[in-house]
Amino acid sequence: MNSAWNPLDADTARLAAESVKFDDRGLVLALACDHASGEILMAAWMNRETLVQTLCTGRMTYWSRSRQEVWVKGLTSGHVQDVVGVELDCDGDALRFRIRQIGHAACHTDRPSCFYRSLQGGRWVEQCDAPPRS
Amino acid sequence: MNSAWNPLDADTARLAAESVKFDDRGLVLALACDHASGEILMAAWMNRETLVQTLCTGRMTYWSRSRQEVWVKGLTSGHVQDVVGVELDCDGDALRFRIRQIGHAACHTDRPSCFYRSLQGGRWVEQCDAPPRS
Repeated sequence: MNSAWNPLDADTARLAAESVKFDDRGLVLALACDHASGEILMAAWMNRETLVQTLCTGRMTYWSRSRQEVWVKGLTSGHVQDVVGVELDCDGDALRFRIRQIGHAACHTDRPSCFYRSLQGGRWVEQCDAPPRS
Repeated sequence: MNSAWNPLDADTARLAAESVKFDDRGLVLALACDHASGEILMAAWMNRETLVQTLCTGRMTYWSRSRQEVWVKGLTSGHVQDVVGVELDCDGDALRFRIRQIGHAACHTDRPSCFYRSLQGGRWVEQCDAPPRS
């Protein structure tokens, strides 16, 4: 299912968010995975408001813990993330979003993925063969 | 790299863990992804002790927040997870483990993945490719 996201209306999105368990900070884990490869690109957080906004707009919108503000991913860089689908985990406290990354970088370091340091023989080594976006 | 994990000695594992940022609970996010497909199967947490244990044994060992105890995944079910590789994210507060799932279930509900509920038209729908508990 690699088609575009069918945006929800606000009432439907709020109802869907009722099944999500937000933690004591009011946050839920949001994992962004490439819709084609399945590879996880980044891990971030959403509150109820930004989850509803994501479901209504089809554009990944996180809650920035460091800045304590709504964070429409890629708003300044242009590297936005379009929602393709979303799954909820067994405990209801983690969401797996299948996304289409616009531009080459999901990571704020301008890399395709945030997970670019691999443990090799006890040392974290930067991977130089990170695959380009499909 | 789908070969087996080369277990680290305790000193090397502790040194590798020095690069990881544990949160105010002493935990780091640990994502278990299928080594072959890249698909994320479950999201859980490790403390410093269980991260070191994972790196030394090559077997995924989490910290159970609900039970507040060391949790060697699959110890009772037999559905253990063997480490193939691990990557650290840009912020140092999330780990992506590439694992080989032994047995069919990464999820405690006996499903292959914890992310078995998909949002379809505003409703969370169980994906029918996940076998029910027999």
